[in-house]
Amino acid sequence: MSSTAVDATPAPADKTPRTERGRRTRRALLDAAAAEFGERGFHDASVSGITRRAGVALGSFYTYFNSKDALFRALVSDMSGRVRDEVAPAVRGAPPGVPAERAGLAAFLAFVREHKEIYRIIDESEFVDPDSFRRHYATTAVRIEARLRSAAALGEIRADAGEVHAWAIMGMNVFLGLRYGVWAEDGDVEVVADAAADLLCRGLAAR
Amino acid sequence: MSSTAVDATPAPADKTPRTERGRRTRRALLDAAAAEFGERGFHDASVSGITRRAGVALGSFYTYFNSKDALFRALVSDMSGRVRDEVAPAVRGAPPGVPAERAGLAAFLAFVREHKEIYRIIDESEFVDPDSFRRHYATTAVRIEARLRSAAALGEIRADAGEVHAWAIMGMNVFLGLRYGVWAEDGDVEVVADAAADLLCRGLAAR
Repeated sequence: MSSTAVDATPAPADKTPRTERGRRTRRALLDAAAAEFGERGFHDASVSGITRRAGVALGSFYTYFNSKDALFRALVSDMSGRVRDEVAPAVRGAPPGVPAERAGLAAFLAFVREHKEIYRIIDESEFVDPDSFRRHYATTAVRIEARLRSAAALGEIRADAGEVHAWAIMGMNVFLGLRYGVWAEDGDVEVVADAAADLLCRGLAAR
Repeated sequence: MSSTAVDATPAPADKTPRTERGRRTRRALLDAAAAEFGERGFHDASVSGITRRAGVALGSFYTYFNSKDALFRALVSDMSGRVRDEVAPAVRGAPPGVPAERAGLAAFLAFVREHKEIYRIIDESEFVDPDSFRRHYATTAVRIEARLRSAAALGEIRADAGEVHAWAIMGMNVFLGLRYGVWAEDGDVEVVADAAADLLCRGLAAR
């Protein structure tokens, strides 16, 4: 682990805000951190820049987080959870199998366009906090695999759908998000999702 | 661009070695750089560490590269080219369409297992040298898209295969490489490539 890896000391449990006002301040710090880390990167970002963006007194910061490292770790976990929570209702609202994966991708692309900084933050976690990076992709893949296995059990998709398919779909989604969400918004989200779903549905076979 | 971005000054053309001995030394420096950057990351890597690994005198380094930044940039370009050159013969040796993509993925997975550092180096280029990062994926996608369009013109795959399919395939390959090449080698390369090819061939459809 390089010297840039974050301090792995867990935040004491008592830093979890007990009041609604405390939860709002913590949320404001996380949102400000997303902007600051997204624009400047981990090393150039500063706690004072983050509290300034959040409109929070510098001294209050340590009520919520032990360090810039601890805040970064919390932010990766928060962003991972926000993607999950953004995608989940779209997936649940569609029939299992390819329609659910299509809906998940469309929701993900729309989320990425509004939160482009998520790529830089998750990607930088590979260097700043490798455990968070690994946890993000490992848990996402497990979630996709569970969906595929449920759909397979229902006979909606091939019976052998499993881990390789889950990682293939996750990679597809991440790179379509990079191309059509972060780099440029030249493709309509629904058109990109349709093309991907059609690929998942019947592959590359000639008609 | 953050303060960690590399100096974008191109190396003077006259740093290209003219002799076979010079080319061997440059190659040794690139290989040593892959090991040093892969293990320590860009910021903790040092020119002296790289020359020591390469068995090259520190003073000779500047005959070949202007700086650590310039060497990193050259290394990303070199690794991008090595992946391309490793995959190309496998792709050319298979029938166009899905068999070619399958062969390319199998060759890529085998390469990644031997050169796990490529992930860390390409991923770190997003922060150290963003132009190299973008160029790597943009040129890879263009290459895949060109293959798909040729195969479509031959009637081997669907006629509408294009950019979305190319990015989907690239993402699939990168994440299967991360899972089955870098993180763990628990899957047989040919079995993983077969599963991915079967997905590309006929999608997730129930049999």
